[in-house]
Amino acid sequence: MENASFGWLITATALVMLMQAGFALVESGSTRTKNAVNVMMKNYMDLCVGSIAFWLIGFGLMFGANSTGWIGTSEFMPTALAGGDAAFLLFQTVFAATAMTIASGAMAERTSYVGYVVSAALVCAVIYPVLGSWVWGGANGGSGWLADLGFIDFAGSTVVHSTGGWLALAGVLVLGPRAGRFGADGSLRAIPGHNLNSVALGGFLLWFGWFGFNAGGVFDASDAVGGIVLNTHLAACAGAVGALIADRFRNGKPLLTVTVNGSLGGLVGITAGCANLDPGSALIVGILAGTLVVAGEQVLVAMRIDDVVGAIPVHGFCGVWGTLAAGLFGRDTWMSVDQLGVQALGAGVCFLWVFPLSYLMFVLIDSLFGLRVDALGEQRGLDFAEHAEVGYPEFQQNVLHAGRDSL
Amino acid sequence: MENASFGWLITATALVMLMQAGFALVESGSTRTKNAVNVMMKNYMDLCVGSIAFWLIGFGLMFGANSTGWIGTSEFMPTALAGGDAAFLLFQTVFAATAMTIASGAMAERTSYVGYVVSAALVCAVIYPVLGSWVWGGANGGSGWLADLGFIDFAGSTVVHSTGGWLALAGVLVLGPRAGRFGADGSLRAIPGHNLNSVALGGFLLWFGWFGFNAGGVFDASDAVGGIVLNTHLAACAGAVGALIADRFRNGKPLLTVTVNGSLGGLVGITAGCANLDPGSALIVGILAGTLVVAGEQVLVAMRIDDVVGAIPVHGFCGVWGTLAAGLFGRDTWMSVDQLGVQALGAGVCFLWVFPLSYLMFVLIDSLFGLRVDALGEQRGLDFAEHAEVGYPEFQQNVLHAGRDSL
Amino acid sequence: MENASFGWLITATALVMLMQAGFALVESGSTRTKNAVNVMMKNYMDLCVGSIAFWLIGFGLMFGANSTGWIGTSEFMPTALAGGDAAFLLFQTVFAATAMTIASGAMAERTSYVGYVVSAALVCAVIYPVLGSWVWGGANGGSGWLADLGFIDFAGSTVVHSTGGWLALAGVLVLGPRAGRFGADGSLRAIPGHNLNSVALGGFLLWFGWFGFNAGGVFDASDAVGGIVLNTHLAACAGAVGALIADRFRNGKPLLTVTVNGSLGGLVGITAGCANLDPGSALIVGILAGTLVVAGEQVLVAMRIDDVVGAIPVHGFCGVWGTLAAGLFGRDTWMSVDQLGVQALGAGVCFLWVFPLSYLMFVLIDSLFGLRVDALGEQRGLDFAEHAEVGYPEFQQNVLHAGRDSL
Repeated sequence: MENASFGWLITATALVMLMQAGFALVESGSTRTKNAVNVMMKNYMDLCVGSIAFWLIGFGLMFGANSTGWIGTSEFMPTALAGGDAAFLLFQTVFAATAMTIASGAMAERTSYVGYVVSAALVCAVIYPVLGSWVWGGANGGSGWLADLGFIDFAGSTVVHSTGGWLALAGVLVLGPRAGRFGADGSLRAIPGHNLNSVALGGFLLWFGWFGFNAGGVFDASDAVGGIVLNTHLAACAGAVGALIADRFRNGKPLLTVTVNGSLGGLVGITAGCANLDPGSALIVGILAGTLVVAGEQVLVAMRIDDVVGAIPVHGFCGVWGTLAAGLFGRDTWMSVDQLGVQALGAGVCFLWVFPLSYLMFVLIDSLFGLRVDALGEQRGLDFAEHAEVGYPEFQQNVLHAGRDSL
Repeated sequence: MENASFGWLITATALVMLMQAGFALVESGSTRTKNAVNVMMKNYMDLCVGSIAFWLIGFGLMFGANSTGWIGTSEFMPTALAGGDAAFLLFQTVFAATAMTIASGAMAERTSYVGYVVSAALVCAVIYPVLGSWVWGGANGGSGWLADLGFIDFAGSTVVHSTGGWLALAGVLVLGPRAGRFGADGSLRAIPGHNLNSVALGGFLLWFGWFGFNAGGVFDASDAVGGIVLNTHLAACAGAVGALIADRFRNGKPLLTVTVNGSLGGLVGITAGCANLDPGSALIVGILAGTLVVAGEQVLVAMRIDDVVGAIPVHGFCGVWGTLAAGLFGRDTWMSVDQLGVQALGAGVCFLWVFPLSYLMFVLIDSLFGLRVDALGEQRGLDFAEHAEVGYPEFQQNVLHAGRDSL
Repeated sequence: MENASFGWLITATALVMLMQAGFALVESGSTRTKNAVNVMMKNYMDLCVGSIAFWLIGFGLMFGANSTGWIGTSEFMPTALAGGDAAFLLFQTVFAATAMTIASGAMAERTSYVGYVVSAALVCAVIYPVLGSWVWGGANGGSGWLADLGFIDFAGSTVVHSTGGWLALAGVLVLGPRAGRFGADGSLRAIPGHNLNSVALGGFLLWFGWFGFNAGGVFDASDAVGGIVLNTHLAACAGAVGALIADRFRNGKPLLTVTVNGSLGGLVGITAGCANLDPGSALIVGILAGTLVVAGEQVLVAMRIDDVVGAIPVHGFCGVWGTLAAGLFGRDTWMSVDQLGVQALGAGVCFLWVFPLSYLMFVLIDSLFGLRVDALGEQRGLDFAEHAEVGYPEFQQNVLHAGRDSL
């Protein structure tokens, strides 16, 4: 790898790492004050624990020698790495951490800290890398079976984002909705996030980081990078516009949360095909992704599924849409039914691997550690119940004093 | 373009994109809580709408074949782009969005969301690109008439920042001051921003992004980049110091808002000449820019012009100062009266193009959509009136409950 | 320097500059609302004043011709710089500013603004650069005497972080603890920070910036960069885990502040040896650094030393640990007692230079300007007493109205 490439690959890695801050801000801002520290902690710790787990086991399963196409079998706990290999490992590490952190927002305000951290380790060690090896495996010999079929997922609409979305779906189904979200009589209660300033800043940081997420995979910083980032940006813009248009049919006023989620949906939607589409197609993919975010949230609410931040529509549904769109709108696979079939297969395989397995994982964690906090802890807030720290001790009214006197 | 260049150009583009978050934080933090969501929304949406408008029309007007020197006539809705061209387009897109977003802060707390978004589209589609074609045009043949005269504006003290400043001036004149800002008896009322933590973080992010803004234009990441970023940094430092010194004559205590605006003034001031000045000159340019920010705010207050964040002094006045300084202090044009004349001409042309045209635009928008919200909406806050979302529902006292129950 | 290098070096410089925002957020969030503006101001202004002081004097003392190995004697107020030299100067400037800003957090909530800003100028002009010349000097001829002995400190565990930690220690000893922190009867009172959202975001930004901090020194963006950033990331992850494990023995519940400080300790710990260690060693260094943060905070509390953010354990103690570890765990110096001796010498020299000199400096500043605000100002808050601006005027209860009516 020449020196120019190192600069770009490391920069892209740093940008993707900063997406953790983006997720943390969106998710924390979307919850109530009493749970703000807990959500931040989960986002901070899934990066820490997930990165170590990926180094120990995940990287080998995903990128080790892959003679069967189904799993990697070398490169565990890699030590004596050439510079390019080390940079590649780190870039993949922050990708793995992204997949996990998507779920924390959906599952916010009732998931136990310990249960969540254990799941982060398992996802980064096993669930994510095995699927990844089917699509992106073979860096050290062999190749993934889905890649062999011609499956296109350049930066991970399926591998990262749908995986995160299906994890989130499994999590919220095992957990059930937050207390008070849905009335016994079928009524709904909105639970507004406590800090929309955080949500917006988080959206900007995710958008910023996505330039690295989508274009970092061009390890040699070649000509392709320009088109990728242009598509990425336009799809984000179009996603926000699409979501606001779709939301108009539901309500009269434009919401910040819908805007941010729309742009994130556009970003997820362009992730698979960012290297294969023209800018005009990127705009179309983005607009429809934004629409899908709004429609998807509506469907989840109708099904009484409580996804705090809309992670399932944004990452799960738009991930599928982006994967299909990469086939349909690709310059070289324009409206190809065959390619569409391969794309649908890949998206379906992701769901069939991730959803049942993570559902099982969450059930097991629930029985071993307790996945959901108890009712009193949920009512008082997870910051008090789990951390003895509150986010804004001077602004929160009637807060149970949680600080340690010994510090 | 070689690969090394792609890495730097995309990185610089990402940094400039993040300046949107910087502006959003400075502007949102400088307004009252009841308008925090609205300001964020405007910053988020002008990026989305402006980027699409620039792709549709603006880029062609600015960088299309420019045989007359007055306007580009090709490259509309560009699709099949080489990587370098795509990266260049995106870099220019985030520049266009910067010009617009400057105005949102000045016009905050009383401008309607729809009116603002429509103006963002028009500015990025027409007003900014036509001026830009005179200075930076000709990427696809021909050259701008101001560039032909030898006008120096390396990264846009005039093209981007003064444009934003004059847009802001036109906007606040059409709107008038916020209710309660100036008493009928000539008295003044300070309206403090609700979150100075946001303002400071926004200042840091803008500073960070400015490294890309000023040095990204060196597309091949050559030797010149080092001097540019050094000048940029020193001018920012000196701007803060200059503003605090100037403010000392007005009041005894150092303010955070003055500090941040001073550094931004320094950054605007060095933008035109960042590639032509020595570091010592950059310090002088910065100190005087900081002084100008304080003096300019004082003049606006004396004229009873209500610029919420000081965008007119920071971007308008310091943009002019930076444009003149690029001629006066340039290594190759040191104290050249001829060059100073050309610089003054360019700065004057920018005002004569942007101010009357955008004044007209805001008047038209006002008559078509209503540029200013009604008095009740202004009193209740734009978040309630326009978005049915509030920024901090648990901290705001006596807030009108704005959430949708259906979500 | 070839062009690829410029892109990376400038990017790294921008990342390090953004660490100022990270420090500002961590420190501001860790203080009470009434001091939030003051802490932000100090972080903003030490960058401004420190950068100018470093350009005037510091850079020459640190990197000027260094025939004795003890001090540089050329390159003051450098002007006609080649691009590479300008980029190098700026990279070193943001390093110098980092050393100073570390102290502002420890000394928060009682240090006068003017006293702090004067100390920032002196540290960046003299105290930091003289020490730096012993380790990193010689860019313009000669070499530092500690470097000649084989002292390893790749990115500054000693030069930057321990320096900052000992500055902080001297500062808090001269200042004494905050009013109410320690009772006359030996009791302790926890003073929780007002905004943990800020603390977490600051932690993420510091982590992000550290990729540039540790890897930017590889000016040609060569193969070594990959290993450096991988080590940096893994040590941060391990630091958080180590701190939480250690904290477990003290208390039952995982704290966000401990998590963030643990990761920062890991980052400080890997800074000296990031280019010399294997990833497995980086994990060990990080875990022990995290443990040291918790143990060190406990020691300081036992000694009734009031370090608001834990800067002394994180930067001082972990800086020493990282310096020793760079010798012990280095691939080429594995468990070498000789190297360990050189490392211990360097760490000790840093303490002996920085601590007494900065203690003297703070005593002198105290007698000339007053280092500590008066008791009434401390009680009312430094924002009111020193800036006439408050951070969150709408959320703070019973705030003394501080705004200027004339604005």
